[in-house]
Amino acid sequence: MTADAPRIMDEDECWEFLRSHEFGRLAFHLADEVHIAPINYAVDHRTLLFRTAEGSKLLGIVMNPDVAFEIDEYDDAKAASVIVRGTARLLPEDEAHRSENVPLRPWVADFKYNVVEITPTEMTGRRFDLTKPWTRITPRD
Amino acid sequence: MTADAPRIMDEDECWEFLRSHEFGRLAFHLADEVHIAPINYAVDHRTLLFRTAEGSKLLGIVMNPDVAFEIDEYDDAKAASVIVRGTARLLPEDEAHRSENVPLRPWVADFKYNVVEITPTEMTGRRFDLTKPWTRITPRD
Repeated sequence: MTADAPRIMDEDECWEFLRSHEFGRLAFHLADEVHIAPINYAVDHRTLLFRTAEGSKLLGIVMNPDVAFEIDEYDDAKAASVIVRGTARLLPEDEAHRSENVPLRPWVADFKYNVVEITPTEMTGRRFDLTKPWTRITPRD
Repeated sequence: MTADAPRIMDEDECWEFLRSHEFGRLAFHLADEVHIAPINYAVDHRTLLFRTAEGSKLLGIVMNPDVAFEIDEYDDAKAASVIVRGTARLLPEDEAHRSENVPLRPWVADFKYNVVEITPTEMTGRRFDLTKPWTRITPRD
């Protein structure tokens, strides 16, 4: 009935996992609320870049740069997830070109001109072996 | 070069999408910070339930019940995402049994006894056709 403990990824593995994906979820403050949104992103050196239109994501991070970001993959037997906490910064015009040198393809053609950089302050990667349904544990009193 | 606008899911479609998945990401406050964590969940009537051990998720939502939750699916041609904003509540002992009547299987066998309920206050579902790489738009000055 016991599962192996999650295996912790080291920092290089986390970056490798981040580089091998392009779709994640950004959690951000919007005034007093927490919000979450799917984004596509790319790794640029030791930062993440994404594009966004004017909207709540941009407003939220300009008001409060504290963000969290997550990517994952899973199948029936295992799951893996990398979680980043960090600070987001709208790139000024003279840095926005950085988004042209990374594989950051807009998934929806709606001209997203603002480029945001996330600089990680904490990063956690974990790989799990998943409990099979037939070993399902139902807590009982 | 234009893509179709996202198609908005109505509330029933959002619930159907939520019921057909079991893995999502919870964004929550932890004091002044925003955090994100993958969770597995189940729909119980018009709420979401998940189990959690003692830890930052539980501490965070007890301190501040404002949460956001996201699920998605995507392939090369399309993506879909449902985002829930709501309030989280640790179920008292006499309600925790609700988690036994829903398909909430613990993915990792580590006895997570606390049951948390998320009551949505806002729900948004969107389906997108994705821009193909060969129509990639590179903003230029």
